[in-house]
This record gives sequence, structure tokens and C-alpha cells, in this order.
Amino acid sequence: MADKIESIAILGGTGDLGGGLARQWSRAGFKILIGSRTLEKGQAAAAALLAEFPDLNVTGHENLDAATQADLVVLTVPFAHQLSTLETVKQGLSGKILIDVTVPLVPPKVGTVQLPEKGSAAVMAQELLGADVQVVSAFQNVGAVHLQEDHKIECDVLVTGNKRAAREIVIELVEAVGLRGWHAGPLANAAAAEAMTSVLISINRHHGIDGAGIVISGEAKG
Amino acid sequence: MADKIESIAILGGTGDLGGGLARQWSRAGFKILIGSRTLEKGQAAAAALLAEFPDLNVTGHENLDAATQADLVVLTVPFAHQLSTLETVKQGLSGKILIDVTVPLVPPKVGTVQLPEKGSAAVMAQELLGADVQVVSAFQNVGAVHLQEDHKIECDVLVTGNKRAAREIVIELVEAVGLRGWHAGPLANAAAAEAMTSVLISINRHHGIDGAGIVISGEAKG
Repeated sequence: MADKIESIAILGGTGDLGGGLARQWSRAGFKILIGSRTLEKGQAAAAALLAEFPDLNVTGHENLDAATQADLVVLTVPFAHQLSTLETVKQGLSGKILIDVTVPLVPPKVGTVQLPEKGSAAVMAQELLGADVQVVSAFQNVGAVHLQEDHKIECDVLVTGNKRAAREIVIELVEAVGLRGWHAGPLANAAAAEAMTSVLISINRHHGIDGAGIVISGEAKG
Repeated sequence: MADKIESIAILGGTGDLGGGLARQWSRAGFKILIGSRTLEKGQAAAAALLAEFPDLNVTGHENLDAATQADLVVLTVPFAHQLSTLETVKQGLSGKILIDVTVPLVPPKVGTVQLPEKGSAAVMAQELLGADVQVVSAFQNVGAVHLQEDHKIECDVLVTGNKRAAREIVIELVEAVGLRGWHAGPLANAAAAEAMTSVLISINRHHGIDGAGIVISGEAKG
């Protein structure tokens, strides 16, 4: 693992959430490698961001190329493509942190929790990748719309992973996009954050809210 | 189901969370039946509350007696006793709402999500009780300490259940104790709220917080 993260690959960086993270992190000074299934789509997403902010360090790639070149890799593809994408890029992840943003939504009932086989998509990713990759789960509850806009985002990020040092690096990246990150326990706890997304979708529907999020409350012990 | 809830049985009402709910609801004007495995323990818990607030309508009972007499029943026993307690009181629940507060914590690793067989303790309760009882899941993320004290509680309550009308009644009871309740979707979504408790325990530990809770953020659509 690189001591200092300077470059971040965003696999699925052409989507709403990945694109939002690319936008925020590149503006925070990171080198961003937008990965896609084809080089052309990755380059088009990079070009769109550069058209708006010409000074950013953003390039487009195929997923494996992006993963191999970057210090840290973020996965933001739909659940249906999670494991197949990881198979494609596995050789580029060795020794790195993978931030898995996958939410195991199963259409059409995306407002209903439908737990995956292992209870958590992030746990499935860790099992596929093995101990050589440190999977950290984060960002499941942040509406993509919030990362596209430039207003204050009122949504905390639950950061789960089996190693504290890896969670700490991810929390720094969370703070770099203006959000608050929390040490939320081992990777098994990603089940809670992943399932919470269906709860937030239900709350949006029933209460007429656009982009409900969660905020952790509580006072530090005196 | 009673159109208007006037009396509430709290099974496990001698514990911290059940005792806190008894304290808050009785002071809000509800008749409270504190249930326990023995009549003596139920009566002792009622007597303790009455010693502090003599004018309340609080009585102590065996669990089945409490469940049978009340308009609505709340289950606040440890996970290990959830299904056995429900077997004991099942005949008293017919046609009623059961608020299941069970959190499937498995000691000693209570800060790690360990999903139960069906993903959710509340779903297990509904399967045991059948369609004649409306199980609604709530209050998993509220620290008992907050209900014992009389300060403003900064923690929202996710209310899940398969019928909107039943959720609505429970949300009114949530509001009666000074909390904000949310329609959080079908009972399957209780998995998220139940698992979140282990996340909050992890956050308490890692961040030195006493009683972390969750608050839903988001603005109503204009």
C-alpha cells in the first residue's frame, strides 16, 4: 500500500456516483483515472470533466489499466457487474486498498432490503480478492446528486474494513470531498450501510424527500 | 387492532430499554403494563417507576397477562429470548400490532454485524406469529440511556413494517416519546436498522462517543 495516496482509479467512473467522486476528488487535487469497460467511454468522461474544469489532472482508461496505474482503486459499478468487474481488474489491485461502493440493490424492488448471499457485497468482494487487497466499504448512503452539486452535503459516510489503518486512509478521502467519515467497524458491518440505502429510498418515497441521508449524532465523552 | 391505542404492554419492561419506554410513554399519558417472566419482577419494575412518579398508570404482570390485556405490545427482550418469549405470549397478540425492538446482537462481538438466519429478527418474529399479528420494527438505534434521562434525544427511529397504517400508529408512539419516526419501508428493511446497532457500537468505541445515534437528513421536495 502506498503510504500517501496521490492517484485514485474510479472504476465505473462514467456513472453518476463515480462521476461525482471524480469531480470532487480531482478538484481536491488528486490525480484521477476514470475507468470504464472501454477506453473510449473512460476518455469521454474525462473530457467532459476537463471541459468544465480544464486544470484538473483527469484521464480516461480501461478499467484494468486505471486500476493498475493508481495508488488506490474505487469500485462504483452496479451490483450486477461488481464481481465480474473485479475479476477483470484483480491483477492490478495487489497490495492496494479497494474502496467498494457497491450497493446490492436488486431491481425492481430497490426500496426493499434484499441481502446478498454473504449479507454484504463488500464481504463478497473481499472473498474474491483475497487478503492481498484491503477492501474498505464506504459511500453507500451518499446520493450521487449531492456529489454533482457544489453545496454542503448533509450525509455522513460509514467506513467499514478489517484494518484500522486502511479505514483511516479512506476517512481522509471522505473528508477531502467535504463529508464526515466514521470508523464503523469490520467489513461485515458493510451489511448495515448497504442495506440502509434501501431504507433511504423508502424514506424518499414515503416522505417526499430528495436524497435523504444519514448523520451520526452523539457527544464525545467528557 | 384497536383504532386508538390507550394501553401498551412492554415485554421485557424490566430491562433498560423497556424500562425507558415505560417511563416515557406512561408520562405521555398511556396506560403501561410492564411484562416480565415473573409477576413479582413486573410488579417491582412498576413500583420503582411509581415511586418516582406516583400519578402514572403503570402496573406489573407476567408477560402473557400483559400482552393479553393491552391494545398494543412491545417486545424488548434480548435476542436470545426473542422467539421463546413470543411463543409464550402468542395467544395474547391476535389482531394486534407487535413492536419488535429486538436487535440480533451475538455476544461477545456485539460491535460486529452477525445477521440472523432470515437477515432480520423482526422477520423471524413475523414468520413465527403469522399474518394475524402485524409486526412493526422500531427503536433499535436508540440508546436506553437516552430514554432514562429527560433531555432532548438526538436519534431518529426507523419504522419498518408491511402495512402503512400500522407503521403510522407506531410513528405516533415514537413521537409521543419525543423522537422523530420515519416510514422506512417493509419489514425486510428492519435488517438495516438491526444491523446499524452494531455499527453504532463500533462508532462509540472508535470515536469515544456515548450513545451515538442516527439522524435522517434531507429536504422535502419543493
